[in-house]
Amino acid sequence: MTLLVVGSPAYDTIETPSGRAEDVLGGAATYFSCAASFFGPVRLVGPVGGDFRDEDRALLRERGVDLEGLEERKGETFRWVVRYGDDLKATTLDTRLNVFENYLPEIPGAYRDSRFAFLANAAPSVQLRALEQLPSEAFTVMDSMDLWIEEEREDLERVLRRVDMVIVNDEEARAITGEKSLIKAGRELLNFGPSFVMVKKGEHGAFLWSRGFFYAAPAYPVDTVVDPTGAGDAFAGGVMGYLANAGIADEQHLRRAMIYGLVLSSFCVEAFSLERLEAIDRGDVDARYQEFLRFTAHPG
Amino acid sequence: MTLLVVGSPAYDTIETPSGRAEDVLGGAATYFSCAASFFGPVRLVGPVGGDFRDEDRALLRERGVDLEGLEERKGETFRWVVRYGDDLKATTLDTRLNVFENYLPEIPGAYRDSRFAFLANAAPSVQLRALEQLPSEAFTVMDSMDLWIEEEREDLERVLRRVDMVIVNDEEARAITGEKSLIKAGRELLNFGPSFVMVKKGEHGAFLWSRGFFYAAPAYPVDTVVDPTGAGDAFAGGVMGYLANAGIADEQHLRRAMIYGLVLSSFCVEAFSLERLEAIDRGDVDARYQEFLRFTAHPG
Repeated sequence: MTLLVVGSPAYDTIETPSGRAEDVLGGAATYFSCAASFFGPVRLVGPVGGDFRDEDRALLRERGVDLEGLEERKGETFRWVVRYGDDLKATTLDTRLNVFENYLPEIPGAYRDSRFAFLANAAPSVQLRALEQLPSEAFTVMDSMDLWIEEEREDLERVLRRVDMVIVNDEEARAITGEKSLIKAGRELLNFGPSFVMVKKGEHGAFLWSRGFFYAAPAYPVDTVVDPTGAGDAFAGGVMGYLANAGIADEQHLRRAMIYGLVLSSFCVEAFSLERLEAIDRGDVDARYQEFLRFTAHPG
Repeated sequence: MTLLVVGSPAYDTIETPSGRAEDVLGGAATYFSCAASFFGPVRLVGPVGGDFRDEDRALLRERGVDLEGLEERKGETFRWVVRYGDDLKATTLDTRLNVFENYLPEIPGAYRDSRFAFLANAAPSVQLRALEQLPSEAFTVMDSMDLWIEEEREDLERVLRRVDMVIVNDEEARAITGEKSLIKAGRELLNFGPSFVMVKKGEHGAFLWSRGFFYAAPAYPVDTVVDPTGAGDAFAGGVMGYLANAGIADEQHLRRAMIYGLVLSSFCVEAFSLERLEAIDRGDVDARYQEFLRFTAHPG
């Protein structure tokens, strides 16, 4: 399994109706790596500052995350301060890109044979730079966010034309396509280039479109969402971890991968930061996958 | 099949981003009856005014809806004026209960052997009065709404203690139980009495709880929602029509019934009023059921 992620670790300060966590390990690349690590090793390419803690490096290494691509730059690690209301909607209180600003990824030579690559949410220019350093046969997947959709549209479309799959949430799918109907938006995204479109709908599950099939699945039911941070990246980590380990991205594997994505994100939100992902093992992941199959099983 | 519905027909004036419809046939009992009629005859118990149109009586009769229980009272038929915004959220502009006010159902003798009964959204006192006239072995199902949850709590709980299943939407499930988490709310509703709880989530599908199992399904994907009016009642009609025709409400039949509910509501919203339900036949319903099975099929 050769799975690469390009994105940033972060330190998050999070307030939710369940409590508060200060300066805890987060960031898209981190959530992704931890979720994907249940399936095999992960190569992480991203920037951290001089303040990045040894214990956090150790945590990632213990999970099989290769840190050769973790570039320590002068300055502080990316920081995000967020508050979630009673409806669990996020209000960003502060974003400091710090060393993530003007970062351009340099993919280590040893990583350039990666067959599966996830370009976590970052400026499209960062994603394009990563794509240029990856083999053309790699299965590449991108995420994005409203900021780039609005402000770096042209570059975003260039990335969309080059990747094999896009994983975005419902609002992002609508924003990219200008379609109010999510069903139309998901399908329309295929016209931007990718062969596959996965749309995350939080507690409502996910959709998957290709030119030949459509797949819909509800979310794994979570009693109490303690901290929604990282759910989307844990989803992508579950998807890509499963695919990279299988070494194939056909319809059956993509359907399974989507369920693994839903399972990993359901664990992720049950505690702050990476707490829950650290506490479980592959057996727990597979048990929840099987449970998912049971409660969505077709009537006989 | 002996399926009874207690509730009101109505004339609706509806504005949605797709257009406007004035004084069109609507009402919970009407949507329910039309959706259930694909599976067999339906007995409708409810009030109309002197203004209820012959053509609407004829429409219902043609669909196999028995109108012996349709009570013509002095005054006007229930009227509702609603506007749906771009997000398709409803704003009620006017509600005139008219003949529905102070109505208490009198179930015709010929209907008292009904084995399946749906108590559409109405004051809990109306629902209780209906329950008293139904055989104890009947499989009874109720809907409700925020008004009764807030203002007739005690009676509402009495109805909940007596029915076999409750079908409500996510907000209603939360309001009845006081649980913010929908997953907890659905489960908690079982403690109010019903053996089964179905929660409608609009475009996000539905959940089904019993004390022994849980079932989750996404919605049938609709490109453009023209008019959301009646979707919840069409859902209930699909559920109850299927169950009544099968004559059994065990786990497998309830799962199938929920899919039929999702299918009927998906048709319902594709046009104003009952237009779409009038235009399709049982073959269309079954085709969409099969399509649903395909796009939610478990990976092999």
